[in-house]
Amino acid sequence: MKIAIAGAGAMGSRFGLMLHQGGNEVLLIDGWAEHVQQIKEHGLQANFNGKEVEAKLPIVLQSEVEKEDQVDLIILFTKAMQLEKMLQDIQSLIKKDTEVLCLLNGIGHEDIIEKFVPMENIYIGNTMWTAGLEGPGQVKLFGSGSVELQNLGDGKEAAAKKLADKLSESGLNAHFSDNIHYSIYRKACVNGTMNGLCTILDVNMAELGKTSTAHKMVATIVNEFAKVAAVEKIELDVPEVIAHCESCFDPETIGLHYPSMYQDLIKNHRLTEIDYINGAISRKGKKYGVATPYCDFLTELVHAKEASLNVK
Amino acid sequence: MKIAIAGAGAMGSRFGLMLHQGGNEVLLIDGWAEHVQQIKEHGLQANFNGKEVEAKLPIVLQSEVEKEDQVDLIILFTKAMQLEKMLQDIQSLIKKDTEVLCLLNGIGHEDIIEKFVPMENIYIGNTMWTAGLEGPGQVKLFGSGSVELQNLGDGKEAAAKKLADKLSESGLNAHFSDNIHYSIYRKACVNGTMNGLCTILDVNMAELGKTSTAHKMVATIVNEFAKVAAVEKIELDVPEVIAHCESCFDPETIGLHYPSMYQDLIKNHRLTEIDYINGAISRKGKKYGVATPYCDFLTELVHAKEASLNVK
Repeated sequence: MKIAIAGAGAMGSRFGLMLHQGGNEVLLIDGWAEHVQQIKEHGLQANFNGKEVEAKLPIVLQSEVEKEDQVDLIILFTKAMQLEKMLQDIQSLIKKDTEVLCLLNGIGHEDIIEKFVPMENIYIGNTMWTAGLEGPGQVKLFGSGSVELQNLGDGKEAAAKKLADKLSESGLNAHFSDNIHYSIYRKACVNGTMNGLCTILDVNMAELGKTSTAHKMVATIVNEFAKVAAVEKIELDVPEVIAHCESCFDPETIGLHYPSMYQDLIKNHRLTEIDYINGAISRKGKKYGVATPYCDFLTELVHAKEASLNVK
Repeated sequence: MKIAIAGAGAMGSRFGLMLHQGGNEVLLIDGWAEHVQQIKEHGLQANFNGKEVEAKLPIVLQSEVEKEDQVDLIILFTKAMQLEKMLQDIQSLIKKDTEVLCLLNGIGHEDIIEKFVPMENIYIGNTMWTAGLEGPGQVKLFGSGSVELQNLGDGKEAAAKKLADKLSESGLNAHFSDNIHYSIYRKACVNGTMNGLCTILDVNMAELGKTSTAHKMVATIVNEFAKVAAVEKIELDVPEVIAHCESCFDPETIGLHYPSMYQDLIKNHRLTEIDYINGAISRKGKKYGVATPYCDFLTELVHAKEASLNVK
């Protein structure tokens, strides 16, 4: 199977490496020239559960994709705001039956993808795998994870199950879900609470959890997500989702980590994905006539923080 | 006239010094032992519009007030959260006709003051004077300002005007207002926008003003203040108040300053007055059935920031 990984950062590299080791023909695609050059010259350098691995994976700059052959599957792993540009750049890889699997964080990416791919070929999902980028061409891949995915096209359940099986053959532990939008909303609640709050307050998740107001803020934000989801006939189990978000506070598990948005903005001075998490809830809320003031305000605060750090 | 300044920080010292220079018998009262000791030993050291002044003003720790004589006027200048303790400590100074003038920032202090003083002797006001504390016993007093004040007791307009005249005799430029609650709400809007937002975003007011979301945040917060004020029959001119708040963005005037809450929390690791600004609007909103989500969230964020900095 010929697979393109569109967005070969930490997580894209993990999927690319595992699918390559599983016998697939993998092409990495990325927009970061230095990263692409390093992998071209030295292969992908991965610390894979403590073992140093060097994989000679083909990689191409997204602006130079047109020389490449068409592929059977594209897995999308860009940052949310880079998705549309990536799809424009890789159009030449898409044939009539190319399947596209979107594993980005956040909500509502299918609205962009369907401009480029018929709905019947789009699959969306969620992954619990983790990965860290150590530098250009270098990743750190620890622990285990899973993938949940579902077809967006009618009558494509069998194809979705086949796609999950294909990923599992390479150890990616993928499963078909008949309610992926629930899982996506549930995961977006974690990002919609931990990411923005830790970024604005300059704290890790355990520190956030120790404040007297964290629970009120998390609960209010999750309730806004739930009100918006309900309009789409997705009924979140609000107490369960709040507890799921607050499990991130535990310093024994992941509480001492700073969420990805913190790392993007505060550590690396990069634009955040806030418009695709809390900002997506604000836009949907406006469209549906549902008030989402905490998501509105948090989105505005994060954009103000981006501006104050001169991140563009 | 025997006047006690209850809370002799920067602004209390300014009023104390000017009233002393105007021929009144002034007693400073404060809870900060080092500050009190410095003024006892060396007098109040003031840089007063560029001139070094040393004033031998009597000062007493608020816990040792009971040896002092009763006074004609008490001007309250504590931090909001120290008001009740101060009033408890200075009860022995209050005689039947002692007038109490409250010039604290924030909203609703009369609810606390009337536990100690009959409403007919309470005056509330607003000041546009500024002052800076340089260290124990040392203040910097620049520029000009004014005071607006009004009686809370029925039929006490004449007394309020007399009190304003008394302050003006010492150069304090005080005026009677027949709508002090409007002025207090208008000033609280400035504090309720600039203070919390600059503190949470770690920016000065000009930097805040340069962000694309500042106007939306300021406008939403001012609208919440206006909705609460309207229940109390105070109709804020919302566009004017928003423009007044946003005039703080101007780097040519005060835009390059960090508001007092920023200095309290971020610079000096002290608790903030958020509960008496946005938090007061949240409490009133709850009582009146008016939604105030931006004030709620901003209050929660500032308390979380206090906790994360271990400020108690």
